[in-house]
Amino acid sequence: MQQSTISQPTMIIDALRARANIHRMNAKAEANKAVLRPHFKTHQSGVVGQWFRQAGVDRITVSSVSMAQYFADHGWDDILIAFPVNLPEIKNINTLAGRIKLYLQLEDVSVATRLNAMLEHEVGVYIKIDSGAGRTGIALENEQAILEMVTALKAFKKLKLTGLLTHAGHFYHQTGGKLAIQEMAHQISLKMNALKSKIKQEDLILSWGDTPSCSMLDELKGFDEWRPGNFVYYDVMQYHIGSCSLEDVAVAMACPVVAVHPEREEIVIYGGSVHFSGEYIAADNNFRMYGYVVNFTKNGWTQPIAGALLARLSQEHGIVKLPKEFCRKYKPGDLIGILPVHSCITVSAIRRQLDLEGNLISKMVVE
Amino acid sequence: MQQSTISQPTMIIDALRARANIHRMNAKAEANKAVLRPHFKTHQSGVVGQWFRQAGVDRITVSSVSMAQYFADHGWDDILIAFPVNLPEIKNINTLAGRIKLYLQLEDVSVATRLNAMLEHEVGVYIKIDSGAGRTGIALENEQAILEMVTALKAFKKLKLTGLLTHAGHFYHQTGGKLAIQEMAHQISLKMNALKSKIKQEDLILSWGDTPSCSMLDELKGFDEWRPGNFVYYDVMQYHIGSCSLEDVAVAMACPVVAVHPEREEIVIYGGSVHFSGEYIAADNNFRMYGYVVNFTKNGWTQPIAGALLARLSQEHGIVKLPKEFCRKYKPGDLIGILPVHSCITVSAIRRQLDLEGNLISKMVVE
Repeated sequence: MQQSTISQPTMIIDALRARANIHRMNAKAEANKAVLRPHFKTHQSGVVGQWFRQAGVDRITVSSVSMAQYFADHGWDDILIAFPVNLPEIKNINTLAGRIKLYLQLEDVSVATRLNAMLEHEVGVYIKIDSGAGRTGIALENEQAILEMVTALKAFKKLKLTGLLTHAGHFYHQTGGKLAIQEMAHQISLKMNALKSKIKQEDLILSWGDTPSCSMLDELKGFDEWRPGNFVYYDVMQYHIGSCSLEDVAVAMACPVVAVHPEREEIVIYGGSVHFSGEYIAADNNFRMYGYVVNFTKNGWTQPIAGALLARLSQEHGIVKLPKEFCRKYKPGDLIGILPVHSCITVSAIRRQLDLEGNLISKMVVE
Repeated sequence: MQQSTISQPTMIIDALRARANIHRMNAKAEANKAVLRPHFKTHQSGVVGQWFRQAGVDRITVSSVSMAQYFADHGWDDILIAFPVNLPEIKNINTLAGRIKLYLQLEDVSVATRLNAMLEHEVGVYIKIDSGAGRTGIALENEQAILEMVTALKAFKKLKLTGLLTHAGHFYHQTGGKLAIQEMAHQISLKMNALKSKIKQEDLILSWGDTPSCSMLDELKGFDEWRPGNFVYYDVMQYHIGSCSLEDVAVAMACPVVAVHPEREEIVIYGGSVHFSGEYIAADNNFRMYGYVVNFTKNGWTQPIAGALLARLSQEHGIVKLPKEFCRKYKPGDLIGILPVHSCITVSAIRRQLDLEGNLISKMVVE
């Protein structure tokens, strides 16, 4: 890696790892008779989008109207906004729906009514099902409400029912490991297929997708579409869940060391809560852990340094705990690598992304 | 407030409150025989900078070289970068030092040696003292190391000792209230003045500054310069600490409601961890609290709704808990207000800031 060009906190992408992650997930979806509609909120990058396109992906998921506009500008013409329809953005939704195949997420008949009245073009609609995450959507058990929504949609000329969509966000907090996730995914699949058989729409898509289940399970049947996102980069949280190996993590933050405190077994880096997210993992020794510590090499980065972690953050400062013998290997001005706890949020916070050759990986700028 | 123009998470600034906060702090510093050198990392805005200038402020603090460049471009010519010198940015440091009166923060003789060799212009130097926060700096008790640093600086032609600087970040976690903070600040002041008397440099500045102490204490003697930053906006964390009243909080996030779940006593907003920070306060009822909930009015916003809080965040979603009777007052598309837990980090995360009249408050864009 070209360390000399980096003077501020910078996200480094291992493109080979990311491309391998894309190919593996695409092949796995295919083997499970599902189409991959990856979530692009993780990378938010036209460049990384091209890697997906080269792997054969032709439809994507995003989490905002702005993100849909950005990727439409980058040539994507089949986009699902997997977020409850935000009515104040109707003008941009109408513009998008006139340009590309646009799919929206609905869960509320009153919103559907208002949306239908405001739309200028037909859009596809996924009904959001809450399969246990408790974030939003109609509860999977509330069959009556789901079927009422299906019936209501038939009256709306601009809204074409496309599928039922769920996101098992609660798998992130599952402690039962792979077997528990396998069983939960299986139960959700059974219930969603039972719903589909009652809806009697042959082309109805059952849309699924979270990185833990799509990564951990060898077999994941009963869904037509997968929408994981994080897997392109993975991160320390996914490693802890068991979704990936450390060798699959395709992203590391490069941060300049600005102070060394061997007596405290700590070094201070330029890289704080405005660069990383505030998300952390509780580590064994009672510290919060905001990331693993690595060193950059010519072709990437090392395994995490044993006993080292990003322990505290303030706005621009990060405090790295590491054994005294390692402390002394760093001096102010050196670069240190941090594998982030949550890559999606870190990508969103950081402006500057480079690949290992030092090429800029441009991404969306939110206005 | 012009609610109809807002379709995405947007930060709303009450300029009157912010200007009142500025005037109050400026007057208080003056009454305590200190000069205000406010920290601009909180607002990062040329527009808000003008409010300070109109209040008589002529010197500022920032937390990065990029921020110093931004404010130099906005006409500020006396800037302290209160962050350990980041040597890889020497080129930009040299350019800045040729344009304005630049002050840097040092704590390490070896860094001073390297910096002196690389500098093209003289800069002022503040020695960073760790008065208990444990983030970085030479420990206040380590008189020998501090005096060695002072002696070392005399040999460096490009480095002119300007002051001793400390930040009592540990006051944020102080539970003893105003009296405890008063006593701790007093003790630090005594120790720093004792150091000053040994250094024997008449114009040596003792630089101090955190929003809790500068806000809570009526009398705060013994420092020549104050560097608080957060006070311009304040936030829910400062309110909990006791630094401000709710009427002083000058910032609220405006977020569109996208789903209403009265049966769960929750509504879902467009506004997630990429907009707010991951920082939270532990609330009485065992929930994490990421913000208070308010409604916007013609001239600002209401008091927080009792029993309501921003309880969970994912990337773009926020989950607001609020009593059922309030739940039913909202429908998707409405705007709701959130007083953020930590305004500095929220400002940094969000691109779009408006005042109550709908004027754009431009701010720094990190490249």
